[in-house]
Amino acid sequence: MKALVLERKDELSLRDIPIEETLGPRDVRVALRTVGICGSDVHYYTHGAIGPFVVKEPMILGHEAAGQIVEVGSAVTELKPGDRVCMEPGIPDPASRATRLGKYNLDPAVRFWATPPVHGVLRPTVVHPADFTFKLPDHVSYAEGAMVEPLAVGVHAATKVQVQPGDLAVVIGAGPIGMVTILAALAAGCSRVIVSDIHEPKLAMARTLGPVIPVNVRNQDLLGVVKRESDDWGADVVFECSGYPPAMVEIFDLICPGGKIALVGIPLEPFAFDVSKAQVKEARVESIFRYAHVYPRAVAMIASGKIDVKPLITDRFSFEESVEAFDLAKAMPPASVKVQIDMPA
Amino acid sequence: MKALVLERKDELSLRDIPIEETLGPRDVRVALRTVGICGSDVHYYTHGAIGPFVVKEPMILGHEAAGQIVEVGSAVTELKPGDRVCMEPGIPDPASRATRLGKYNLDPAVRFWATPPVHGVLRPTVVHPADFTFKLPDHVSYAEGAMVEPLAVGVHAATKVQVQPGDLAVVIGAGPIGMVTILAALAAGCSRVIVSDIHEPKLAMARTLGPVIPVNVRNQDLLGVVKRESDDWGADVVFECSGYPPAMVEIFDLICPGGKIALVGIPLEPFAFDVSKAQVKEARVESIFRYAHVYPRAVAMIASGKIDVKPLITDRFSFEESVEAFDLAKAMPPASVKVQIDMPA
Amino acid sequence: MKALVLERKDELSLRDIPIEETLGPRDVRVALRTVGICGSDVHYYTHGAIGPFVVKEPMILGHEAAGQIVEVGSAVTELKPGDRVCMEPGIPDPASRATRLGKYNLDPAVRFWATPPVHGVLRPTVVHPADFTFKLPDHVSYAEGAMVEPLAVGVHAATKVQVQPGDLAVVIGAGPIGMVTILAALAAGCSRVIVSDIHEPKLAMARTLGPVIPVNVRNQDLLGVVKRESDDWGADVVFECSGYPPAMVEIFDLICPGGKIALVGIPLEPFAFDVSKAQVKEARVESIFRYAHVYPRAVAMIASGKIDVKPLITDRFSFEESVEAFDLAKAMPPASVKVQIDMPA
Amino acid sequence: MKALVLERKDELSLRDIPIEETLGPRDVRVALRTVGICGSDVHYYTHGAIGPFVVKEPMILGHEAAGQIVEVGSAVTELKPGDRVCMEPGIPDPASRATRLGKYNLDPAVRFWATPPVHGVLRPTVVHPADFTFKLPDHVSYAEGAMVEPLAVGVHAATKVQVQPGDLAVVIGAGPIGMVTILAALAAGCSRVIVSDIHEPKLAMARTLGPVIPVNVRNQDLLGVVKRESDDWGADVVFECSGYPPAMVEIFDLICPGGKIALVGIPLEPFAFDVSKAQVKEARVESIFRYAHVYPRAVAMIASGKIDVKPLITDRFSFEESVEAFDLAKAMPPASVKVQIDMPA
Repeated sequence: MKALVLERKDELSLRDIPIEETLGPRDVRVALRTVGICGSDVHYYTHGAIGPFVVKEPMILGHEAAGQIVEVGSAVTELKPGDRVCMEPGIPDPASRATRLGKYNLDPAVRFWATPPVHGVLRPTVVHPADFTFKLPDHVSYAEGAMVEPLAVGVHAATKVQVQPGDLAVVIGAGPIGMVTILAALAAGCSRVIVSDIHEPKLAMARTLGPVIPVNVRNQDLLGVVKRESDDWGADVVFECSGYPPAMVEIFDLICPGGKIALVGIPLEPFAFDVSKAQVKEARVESIFRYAHVYPRAVAMIASGKIDVKPLITDRFSFEESVEAFDLAKAMPPASVKVQIDMPA
Repeated sequence: MKALVLERKDELSLRDIPIEETLGPRDVRVALRTVGICGSDVHYYTHGAIGPFVVKEPMILGHEAAGQIVEVGSAVTELKPGDRVCMEPGIPDPASRATRLGKYNLDPAVRFWATPPVHGVLRPTVVHPADFTFKLPDHVSYAEGAMVEPLAVGVHAATKVQVQPGDLAVVIGAGPIGMVTILAALAAGCSRVIVSDIHEPKLAMARTLGPVIPVNVRNQDLLGVVKRESDDWGADVVFECSGYPPAMVEIFDLICPGGKIALVGIPLEPFAFDVSKAQVKEARVESIFRYAHVYPRAVAMIASGKIDVKPLITDRFSFEESVEAFDLAKAMPPASVKVQIDMPA
Repeated sequence: MKALVLERKDELSLRDIPIEETLGPRDVRVALRTVGICGSDVHYYTHGAIGPFVVKEPMILGHEAAGQIVEVGSAVTELKPGDRVCMEPGIPDPASRATRLGKYNLDPAVRFWATPPVHGVLRPTVVHPADFTFKLPDHVSYAEGAMVEPLAVGVHAATKVQVQPGDLAVVIGAGPIGMVTILAALAAGCSRVIVSDIHEPKLAMARTLGPVIPVNVRNQDLLGVVKRESDDWGADVVFECSGYPPAMVEIFDLICPGGKIALVGIPLEPFAFDVSKAQVKEARVESIFRYAHVYPRAVAMIASGKIDVKPLITDRFSFEESVEAFDLAKAMPPASVKVQIDMPA
Repeated sequence: MKALVLERKDELSLRDIPIEETLGPRDVRVALRTVGICGSDVHYYTHGAIGPFVVKEPMILGHEAAGQIVEVGSAVTELKPGDRVCMEPGIPDPASRATRLGKYNLDPAVRFWATPPVHGVLRPTVVHPADFTFKLPDHVSYAEGAMVEPLAVGVHAATKVQVQPGDLAVVIGAGPIGMVTILAALAAGCSRVIVSDIHEPKLAMARTLGPVIPVNVRNQDLLGVVKRESDDWGADVVFECSGYPPAMVEIFDLICPGGKIALVGIPLEPFAFDVSKAQVKEARVESIFRYAHVYPRAVAMIASGKIDVKPLITDRFSFEESVEAFDLAKAMPPASVKVQIDMPA
């Protein structure tokens, strides 16, 4: 089949690649319709690796996906050909201890699309377990369906950190994950979100997502804004979405006594955790890793209009233009929020 | 001062009543601007009592209130004359065990406006502790400020029952408390709310509040709707706001395995709790009583636009028309959602 | 194989019954060593049914079991022949929604030993999934291993209701489940447990289990004792283990403001739930159903000496004496706490 | 009154110091009976400061205290002269936002004994709020009463981190706080505690406290022991009680997926927090600061025998020998666990 293949660092090609997939009794075969480009796809493209995951063989990219079912396995009753769906890109071992406890995102054996050596889905079809395939209502587009993957990260973070109705939140970093975290934080009950970044266009877009207060830390004092907005009490929750260790230094100054921190961004290096500062506020720090059991909830919130992901889709390309799409997605400073690729029907 | 006095069951009068209040160091004096009529006000009017609370002396009604500060005590620095505010109607004993644990709503010694023998606030001014008086931003009206009291009940319920982002909720009963609970449940993360009642106009209004699915249990099957909307799984949360024991009978059928129930409505009689039905779903039942620490959160959500209470204010009267206002509020079937009285400036 | 068969209501026989079990790749075959008699076994014996579960065919009884592995399936690596083990009697559908959420006890499709039409294990061997079979350390006896099943109910209740260190608990009912709940409540952090019953010998045994205060409600005032022991504040947690609706009537009087109730006992009829009493204390009511993910925890607490179940095993019989064992177990007033049957080696 | 005064760094004297205390209506006057020496007392002695808290004026040391009431204020009804009591050393502002939320330990305005400029209680009497004074049952000694303060730290940590029944815990550091944390972790439900340190005598004592597995990290591999004891799964909870940043480096390796960490020890410098390691396990990190609402619980657990603090009291001195007591307490390597001073009756 024809796919977008990362041959090696810095080299993408749209070419035929032999993929044969058999359909198990609890599997479905999906024709891809829309695939979003994630920062991790770009990172494999530009670096050839993410930490211990190294691209050693040509690998198809793409894991934010929606499509249409073309075939279902013999034991699948809840889905049928023609159904419009989105898919979780990670498949855990159903027998692992973590999976059985309901925490399948923590199963070390999970196989995740476009994480070496597992192929991604910038290709015509994929076989996937029905249990990780979720129906889209008619009025939810494939483009929105492909946004469920990043949105799920934000929703999982807001869920785990237990946002309370009326909370004041800070989101550090207005990249794509920061953006979906803003949407999730507001949907989960925050009255307002203060978002910090250094890129003005991203802050300008963030401001359109709801009661969002943008702070450009190049020339504004984030801590000062938090104090002003909270009558000197501090934010209830901070979502760290920058993955940038220097941005984490003042994290305990930002929260209120009893405040909470969700670590969503993945820094390449450790950060200096000031324990005594955390202690005088009894900060709770939640570490976030992907998501579990979130897809149906994210779909439901998009479907009911509680969350609108469409403003985040800034750029769309055809499958034939995939390489151009990646070149836009990798631009620095960022020239896009979410770039998506429409697959041929 | 001139006040709306419940002389005895069924007899209201707008008349002078001698009230003298001294201002303590941590008190403020507030000129009332808007006072909403609550079901409990109406109940005292029509029954002369609620359970053990019996009106034995003439009592001023009204506890949903917003106003303007006219004087502050010597130790008050956070508020000043001219500030627009709303007030919590219940004042706990600050030294009680419940209060010190942060659960002041459970302090049995709480003194609550318009609960015998404590006067309400359908009168020109009231002296109140600064700690229970909350500033309204300029763009939040007194009418909205007076809605904070009922809204706080819904927000407290949604907080205690720990709504998760994307939950499907059922609200039983579309009276004023059901309505604010719908708003709070949606603000707290519910993707959709199914609301049941027997009065079509209330259901029609509920439907305008967001992704709300109205069910008239006179001619519709609530359980069937819940099953349809949840793929036979059940609702994540049920908010019981009717206080009507027969409506509670099927409550455990409505929820999903691991589902939760918030008992918000106050029935006059016990209901038949089917333990084994609750057990096979491991239902968690949360009992809700007023609210604690919710006012600033409710104000913040109104101020940021996350919650819009204005549609619920169906009727407004001048102070001079207070008795007419009560007569509308007590009409059966209900002819209003929230009736408010504007106090003379 | 020779088994203890409930032929029909009131008729037990120790006889050959044809059982053939094939060993799947993730299964183990266990030779039974000790099987305890549960109240449900007795109830099937004396009534032929429990609610909707009716004994229509001859059924082997027994589900509290420990034994020794004699054979393992091809994919089992964590267990081997000769291992001493205890087994969870309920096997859920691994693909059910409840199971995947980590709540397999709530899967309606669970197959549970000695619940019609599923045979129990008063027989020589059984084939069981390795995932629900747990190794016993050498110093933990089979008798203790067979106690893990009832203990797990108590541990699950104490876990779900979130006992806090230093809590004062009330356990209503000193039957076998009440007893294991006392052990679990103390192990989970309770400083003291007040236990109520009407049978003096059971109260006398309960008193030996730790800091336990027995209350015979025939001649003592439970509420009075709770008030005395809590300085009039109330108990932090009440475990309802009697399943006796009249005992539940005062349940909300017993707890403190913000207190919690675990419904462990299974009453045959609904009880009259006084919502307004629950509300003024904001009672949280947790419904308990069996257990999930508790076995390894229960085994660990027995193994480390944190919980000692041995005092509860009041009577032991050989397999040949099984019918006598059941006749003792069904005696009224109760003449035993836990009756166990030792299987031939 | 005659008191143990820290004149300045390295200089203690037992001398008269003028202290006059008036008794407010909600105060009690307590004659001190036993005062324990805390690491912070020793640190002020040896360094003259702890972080921003600098001893600028002579200051009485001691904050772990039990005594007997000699006088009560006019509004105190729950205590009377002759009562044996222990006291919380920190008094928050009752009107602060943190206090009103029930989190008085996080009130920045708290006044804490023997924290400059507030005097401690190595002196004959002290006036203290009744609300922070707790009755000791007759069979609980003053020595045990003076242990409630450090024990409360451990109990608060075990409570906040939500120990589950059957958890495997690791306690890093077997100093006095590590020791009380072991006791609290076991009381709160842990089946076993693995404790690490470098001093053999402390490990030997720790081993006597219950099912405790000592690990001397000078010659043993802590991670290896954790893996062995948990079947390679990891510990459920790690209590960091060493305050030693290098000991924190492997903290995320020690826990299981979904595991929790309580930061109890107070390091002088930040530690290198490896976010991605925390994320793949979704570690929850709880920062612990003193305690709130724990004293009555700690007293109850000592009184019921659930926790035995007596083994930790290794050395007792008379008030006249106070300086010798401090010199023993400051010895390195540690020659004591808890040193207490008996005050003259």
